[in-house]
Amino acid sequence: MRIGVLTSGGDCPGLNAVIRSVVHRGTDVHGDEIIGIEDGFLGLIEGRSRPVSHDDVTGLLTLGGTILGSARVQRERINQAVDNAEELARNLGIDALIAIGGEGTLTAARMFSDAGLPVVGVPKTIDNDIAATDVTFGFDTAVHVATEAIDRLKTTAESHQRVMVVELMGRHTGWITLTAGMAAGAHGILIPEKPFDIEAVARMIEERFRRGKKFAIIAVAEGAKPAPGTLRFDHGEVDQYGHQTFGGIGNRLAGELEGLLGKEARPVILGHTQRGGSPTAIDRVLATRFGWHAVEAVHKGAFGHFTALRGTEIQLIPVSEAVAGLKTVPQDRWVESEAVL
Amino acid sequence: MRIGVLTSGGDCPGLNAVIRSVVHRGTDVHGDEIIGIEDGFLGLIEGRSRPVSHDDVTGLLTLGGTILGSARVQRERINQAVDNAEELARNLGIDALIAIGGEGTLTAARMFSDAGLPVVGVPKTIDNDIAATDVTFGFDTAVHVATEAIDRLKTTAESHQRVMVVELMGRHTGWITLTAGMAAGAHGILIPEKPFDIEAVARMIEERFRRGKKFAIIAVAEGAKPAPGTLRFDHGEVDQYGHQTFGGIGNRLAGELEGLLGKEARPVILGHTQRGGSPTAIDRVLATRFGWHAVEAVHKGAFGHFTALRGTEIQLIPVSEAVAGLKTVPQDRWVESEAVL
Amino acid sequence: MRIGVLTSGGDCPGLNAVIRSVVHRGTDVHGDEIIGIEDGFLGLIEGRSRPVSHDDVTGLLTLGGTILGSARVQRERINQAVDNAEELARNLGIDALIAIGGEGTLTAARMFSDAGLPVVGVPKTIDNDIAATDVTFGFDTAVHVATEAIDRLKTTAESHQRVMVVELMGRHTGWITLTAGMAAGAHGILIPEKPFDIEAVARMIEERFRRGKKFAIIAVAEGAKPAPGTLRFDHGEVDQYGHQTFGGIGNRLAGELEGLLGKEARPVILGHTQRGGSPTAIDRVLATRFGWHAVEAVHKGAFGHFTALRGTEIQLIPVSEAVAGLKTVPQDRWVESEAVL
Amino acid sequence: MRIGVLTSGGDCPGLNAVIRSVVHRGTDVHGDEIIGIEDGFLGLIEGRSRPVSHDDVTGLLTLGGTILGSARVQRERINQAVDNAEELARNLGIDALIAIGGEGTLTAARMFSDAGLPVVGVPKTIDNDIAATDVTFGFDTAVHVATEAIDRLKTTAESHQRVMVVELMGRHTGWITLTAGMAAGAHGILIPEKPFDIEAVARMIEERFRRGKKFAIIAVAEGAKPAPGTLRFDHGEVDQYGHQTFGGIGNRLAGELEGLLGKEARPVILGHTQRGGSPTAIDRVLATRFGWHAVEAVHKGAFGHFTALRGTEIQLIPVSEAVAGLKTVPQDRWVESEAVL
Repeated sequence: MRIGVLTSGGDCPGLNAVIRSVVHRGTDVHGDEIIGIEDGFLGLIEGRSRPVSHDDVTGLLTLGGTILGSARVQRERINQAVDNAEELARNLGIDALIAIGGEGTLTAARMFSDAGLPVVGVPKTIDNDIAATDVTFGFDTAVHVATEAIDRLKTTAESHQRVMVVELMGRHTGWITLTAGMAAGAHGILIPEKPFDIEAVARMIEERFRRGKKFAIIAVAEGAKPAPGTLRFDHGEVDQYGHQTFGGIGNRLAGELEGLLGKEARPVILGHTQRGGSPTAIDRVLATRFGWHAVEAVHKGAFGHFTALRGTEIQLIPVSEAVAGLKTVPQDRWVESEAVL
Repeated sequence: MRIGVLTSGGDCPGLNAVIRSVVHRGTDVHGDEIIGIEDGFLGLIEGRSRPVSHDDVTGLLTLGGTILGSARVQRERINQAVDNAEELARNLGIDALIAIGGEGTLTAARMFSDAGLPVVGVPKTIDNDIAATDVTFGFDTAVHVATEAIDRLKTTAESHQRVMVVELMGRHTGWITLTAGMAAGAHGILIPEKPFDIEAVARMIEERFRRGKKFAIIAVAEGAKPAPGTLRFDHGEVDQYGHQTFGGIGNRLAGELEGLLGKEARPVILGHTQRGGSPTAIDRVLATRFGWHAVEAVHKGAFGHFTALRGTEIQLIPVSEAVAGLKTVPQDRWVESEAVL
Repeated sequence: MRIGVLTSGGDCPGLNAVIRSVVHRGTDVHGDEIIGIEDGFLGLIEGRSRPVSHDDVTGLLTLGGTILGSARVQRERINQAVDNAEELARNLGIDALIAIGGEGTLTAARMFSDAGLPVVGVPKTIDNDIAATDVTFGFDTAVHVATEAIDRLKTTAESHQRVMVVELMGRHTGWITLTAGMAAGAHGILIPEKPFDIEAVARMIEERFRRGKKFAIIAVAEGAKPAPGTLRFDHGEVDQYGHQTFGGIGNRLAGELEGLLGKEARPVILGHTQRGGSPTAIDRVLATRFGWHAVEAVHKGAFGHFTALRGTEIQLIPVSEAVAGLKTVPQDRWVESEAVL
Repeated sequence: MRIGVLTSGGDCPGLNAVIRSVVHRGTDVHGDEIIGIEDGFLGLIEGRSRPVSHDDVTGLLTLGGTILGSARVQRERINQAVDNAEELARNLGIDALIAIGGEGTLTAARMFSDAGLPVVGVPKTIDNDIAATDVTFGFDTAVHVATEAIDRLKTTAESHQRVMVVELMGRHTGWITLTAGMAAGAHGILIPEKPFDIEAVARMIEERFRRGKKFAIIAVAEGAKPAPGTLRFDHGEVDQYGHQTFGGIGNRLAGELEGLLGKEARPVILGHTQRGGSPTAIDRVLATRFGWHAVEAVHKGAFGHFTALRGTEIQLIPVSEAVAGLKTVPQDRWVESEAVL
């Protein structure tokens, strides 16, 4: 078969490992030809592709990023492309497509499948917010990077008696913040799923001070929000250059805490370091398994499905289950962590 | 309540994180007193213990090893102790025990529970060989260390056209070798679950050479064995100092491959670096969750049970399910890896 | 002898390793008593101290931060304390002091020495800006952290065709930015020593785009400044909370580049992760050697001197040589890097 | 100019970074053509080469190994080649050669230079044993890897009360062992430069035990030797496969210590992980600077010289100074470490 493969959306460690795995399984075992489609759905629409051979994927297991590129495409343009799905497939000369991406990609995967371009999805998100899979590749790497950073900040905070506010990725869900916060022993964890009361945060810190621990680390997800009726954080602000201020909540939270505590509080915004670079071992293995199973799914004709991790097994799940809604941090996990405020 | 806690068996990154978590949850939330028992079951038998407070566990989240120590005790001596279970508990002044250890520890946990010293188990194994839990803490760290090592060896092997044989931990199961081997892209993976044919290994390498890839990495578990009727590897050998030669299979496999290939093959034995040091983020979180749930289990009276990861949840499972047999690598995982020979 | 030791100024990986080394060499070899002075010169002035024994420094080699604490003291208050130097020494019961700190600390060390409290200095700066020593501990760790971060960003920038601006520490000197920038292959490096022309930066990026490399990494020191007559960056701005906006130059540079290039440019501010956490091997060794030689210097009576690395040797250098002026990046190093714009 | 470049000898992190730097400086600035010679002097003799362009060196800064390969050539065969130096240069079409390698390579560099093939040397050794340069690239990476490994072993040794013997690279010099041993706080350090008395090692360990520290880490260089008149370690032994047993001293030392102490002692042999993989930041920068200066040296006609680090500067030094003898660990460094026995 001729199988197209594309990567879509923001960067995520393990994309290249999926591509490598698809090529290994497809060409070596099934005799497939793998066609790399450039820049995600944009390349699909514009008919830009190139064959990807075994040699092309040498060294990709450990390499961050995606050799196929990724570009943003407006939802509307994808919808139009769906109408021409069969023609696009013909132009590219592909029998099926493996689409690696987030919730939007999986949604598109189903639409293209329904319209005659058979697609298997591979879920991708550092945020761990895709439903119907225990986790996806990229998340562990993001947590690893964030944890190392908080580990470093902690020694400074402790010996220099500082309050530090670390802003981690997660616009809609708090998985990275909860997990890295627990892993590094953050004293307060603020996530989008539970609007926070800044006075409770300040009280927790003051309580630590009273017990002689004169420092605190607060891990806050970029999408965390104050509870209604407490402070208003305006996330939408733009600077003089017309683009959104990156890291709004971390800076503001530090500022507000300074006011409440009468004590310096330093913000640190980890930013894009969380979504790039060489994947951790566990993410490489998961990406490799997803690639393997995606090729098998194509040969089984399990289109409109995506690869999901359930416990220790990879299963093929209808895309509809993934796109029903974001997977948020459930309440029992907040409780368990002891630090979500 | 007064809750004893002990760590038993070989080292495993995350032991200290469990102890910390037990203290945090027990003392801060339930008002328990946590009694650390020294050197595993030896300290239980000999009545050696000390209280462990919140301050005593500061910094333990990231620290390898166990502040409580661990010592080997003969099975027979544990059996005798079981007969005096109630007396031991009285001497130590504990109402219940949290025992962190491997299969043997979980077995002992049940025996003590039956005999009147109520025990909750926390599974510990870098080898990932305990049944009834998806994984335990320590495994990810071992895989992380092994993967980093193979990553390093690979560049040397490639540029200097070498065959390298890396021996990883795993006497009875191949989980570390399979996972790190896949994560680092080893070309051959040899595990105890599937006796290997050394000629097949040599053929795979020769095939690589013919395709112009003049190097190969073989990841071999210390407990991997040749198939009957092929070579005989004698694992039991001892050196002049009377103790078993560590790393037997790696050295021998490299030697045999040299003979078959007529080409240098270098063995590297990773050894104990795989079971020490600071746990990865994921292992810290899992250890922390296990500690939290173990304390809850004590307060619920779920004795004779142990904490297990199932999918994304921690469940309490009867110890009998864990000790029914080792969890080995199933056949579909060999197949999936493409590299198990 | 009774030797005081204090740490002063911002955090720097290796402070604890110096303290450990002073204790080991002083107590084990010379039979000294080591007195830890809390919170730097503040503890000296306020007479807060505690003995530090061999057991107290267990585990400090790898631990970031300082167990002695560090606090800011106004220069004026130090000057007053100098007048009472002998009395302070008497109160603390110390015969000599080892002061670990930056340029200000070394200056104070000389003043106290002249006034009757004999001091040996140990230079500390992650910025590598202390003259008369090839380097100090902490710098390599900062560079290591920054390099790992840029490595991660690079894969994202490349596969997603982004311009990324990474702001690194260095208010007055560009050593971290030059070194990490070279280590990670940044395409543009902007340092305080060479005012930059933002149009030259934009031209370099456009030139890369023309050659088909559709991404760029710019490493910028927090103290880098535009050349006079080009853009004006206002570093002094404060936000609504009354404290200086951290990371000004990175955000502004990204904003300006977007305007010039008509293309998204993302800022990443590494911040305090560069100055905390476990020191690299080389920093641990240098800190250990400095501690050893500081104790020897005390016993030789080389007061008013500090430990300096010259080539591969530790030498004792008069403090006056260190405080004559900041060590900035010389022009031949810009030239050599090819990337300083 | 047409400049050949070759890499010779064992693997060393940073080789690729030198090649990249030579290409960048040579082609971008001087308009040179860089000719990569394959497999070191073997390719020189056999006339195997290929042009190396800017695109060919993309990504090499962080990549271990050497894209040019490296092979062993007998000294005699090199001597013969020297007689045909001019012819070899003509065949390859090169005006000058940059030879990256160890002591043997630098010696050959001088011989070829004298015979009419002008050569500039770049020193390469993970062992830090080349005289006349403070250090070379690769050493810091080896120390980094070894230190991380000992860090991990230490937590196991401490919590499980073990004596661990870690064998590090260094056949003739103890630099890696001294530096990583100091960085990780090894309790005993055994190096080739100072024959050791095993009973002194055992006494040190027993003394620790008496003080209540029931563990010890011994770092031993592979070339460390017992003092005459104490034990005889036979390094030359070969196993049944006819190749030298790797890691002889570590295994034997552990065995002997078990006998003397009556207590288990575990050997760990780090092996080739020390000489592969991505270079540390400092090694990448040094390799890059060496490459830059080697190209400049070619254009200045400084043949028969090699690039050396002196303090913070790169200097061109006559090869004769490098090959006068190995740079061994001087006595004042043993003394300073406190742990060399």
